[in-house]
Amino acid sequence: MAIRYGVIGTGALGGFYGGKLAKSGQEVHFLFRGDFEYVRKNGLQVDSINGDFHLHEINAYRNPQEMPVCDIVLVCLKTTGNHQLPAMIQSMLHPKSVVVLLQNGLGLEEDISSQLPGVAIAGGLAFICSNKVGPGHVHHLDYGKLNIGSYNIPDIEILNQVVADFRLAGVHTELSANLRFARWQKLVWNIPFNGMTVVLNTTTERLMADESTRELSRELMLEVIRGANACGVPLPESLAQQMIDMTIKMNPYAPSMKLDYDHHRTMEIEYIYSKPIQAALEAGFVMHKVSMLEKQLQFIQANP
Amino acid sequence: MAIRYGVIGTGALGGFYGGKLAKSGQEVHFLFRGDFEYVRKNGLQVDSINGDFHLHEINAYRNPQEMPVCDIVLVCLKTTGNHQLPAMIQSMLHPKSVVVLLQNGLGLEEDISSQLPGVAIAGGLAFICSNKVGPGHVHHLDYGKLNIGSYNIPDIEILNQVVADFRLAGVHTELSANLRFARWQKLVWNIPFNGMTVVLNTTTERLMADESTRELSRELMLEVIRGANACGVPLPESLAQQMIDMTIKMNPYAPSMKLDYDHHRTMEIEYIYSKPIQAALEAGFVMHKVSMLEKQLQFIQANP
Repeated sequence: MAIRYGVIGTGALGGFYGGKLAKSGQEVHFLFRGDFEYVRKNGLQVDSINGDFHLHEINAYRNPQEMPVCDIVLVCLKTTGNHQLPAMIQSMLHPKSVVVLLQNGLGLEEDISSQLPGVAIAGGLAFICSNKVGPGHVHHLDYGKLNIGSYNIPDIEILNQVVADFRLAGVHTELSANLRFARWQKLVWNIPFNGMTVVLNTTTERLMADESTRELSRELMLEVIRGANACGVPLPESLAQQMIDMTIKMNPYAPSMKLDYDHHRTMEIEYIYSKPIQAALEAGFVMHKVSMLEKQLQFIQANP
Repeated sequence: MAIRYGVIGTGALGGFYGGKLAKSGQEVHFLFRGDFEYVRKNGLQVDSINGDFHLHEINAYRNPQEMPVCDIVLVCLKTTGNHQLPAMIQSMLHPKSVVVLLQNGLGLEEDISSQLPGVAIAGGLAFICSNKVGPGHVHHLDYGKLNIGSYNIPDIEILNQVVADFRLAGVHTELSANLRFARWQKLVWNIPFNGMTVVLNTTTERLMADESTRELSRELMLEVIRGANACGVPLPESLAQQMIDMTIKMNPYAPSMKLDYDHHRTMEIEYIYSKPIQAALEAGFVMHKVSMLEKQLQFIQANP
């Protein structure tokens, strides 16, 4: 049985992943904001290192209330808009719909679940470098792996099908047995590099080339790992050095928070910093340096 | 018996304090760098909230080797030049000369003393807001108190006379019985505000107006106080809130490190951050957030 997909937020992430699904023949319905008129006329263009493609005919919507009921709702918005999410997607849900939060951070599923009781929720982590470069125009620069895990889905068979659909569409996708583990693991990278590139107005490459910030990045990672451990998530401390080594080898890359900062958009401080800090604190572990980075970011957010 | 003063570094600090002594009739010899020719022709101008004054005739030198032997050598250079200091002042010293390091930070006297064994050394802390605004031209904006203490002086009678001379010159001066206490106490303010105004490219006023950075400043202060405590310096934790309250009431003020940063000068990271961090660490206390600030500053220094 074919899955009907809804994509909430067709930007760098939604445009790429939803676009890949649609290109491979899946039924996908896309929510747009400002790009709606343009996309209706011109379609969606994805320039990808794995091959460019264009979707001429696309199920585009400007209003989520006009979208059909979907089996899978892929949420590709910034978490800074999550307070509006339940009202936006409620009309798209049937009793077995699954909402997949393709977003960074911690505590997202908990918050949405408390506002949409009984709704099946999953989380997804995208390891991708892609940007929206113009209306209806996404540029996929590097990586692309997707990691999906259940939060509270009664029957995860549907997630297996989602994984199969993505793989068929050419997206390297894996089912995670432990979503919290996957979320914390990604935070080990996201916490140092999102914040530090903003506070020091720089790139991961420069942070790695400088001895002080390379060491500080490692220390921040270790704090996140210990915070995760306090929360019962058994990340090994060796992960810090692994991620440093990986980042040194990476192509120059601007973390999403740095792009948000550069484009004067609200930064995702709450779910990437405040929630993990709070979770670790409740488990008895103080993330001193992560807290300091959070406060510096809050200052920058409030004093642009 | 009159004291003969030498001022090493006639900028915002040396120009003001040395200028006040000279104005009051003391014998003062000033070392200049780039301003030498200008001052020889035009003298030294001090615009001060306590009354402007001009010194037409001034004992100005371009080369420390040409300066006479002095009883008191007031060192008013940035600590970033301290490695050159012993060679600079050696010819000015007689067996009873006292070198007064009018500089911020920790471990200054130890370092100079190890390079000038047997020389009597004192330290001084200037609570002043003054800037060099042009050649031979100092602007004293606010405050001005001087705190002087012995590091290894056999007979501190000479310091009492220095204090008396400064008071006669209209400078509020006190003799500190415990130089290490005074240095750590000043660091409680200097560590948060020097670094944070640079890293966040802002003012103390804005740091105080924002809840996140007001809290972070308090946390940094508490770390410094606990670092001092570990080193046997009994600063009370209540000092943090006192200094926050004081800073909220302060006139807008740019810490010296922020001025150095704005003028592309080397920042005094070593003596204001690295040495206190090291001292606390050796006493068994890790200053997590102060270390993070140090590393951020080192990055900014190396990546202008």
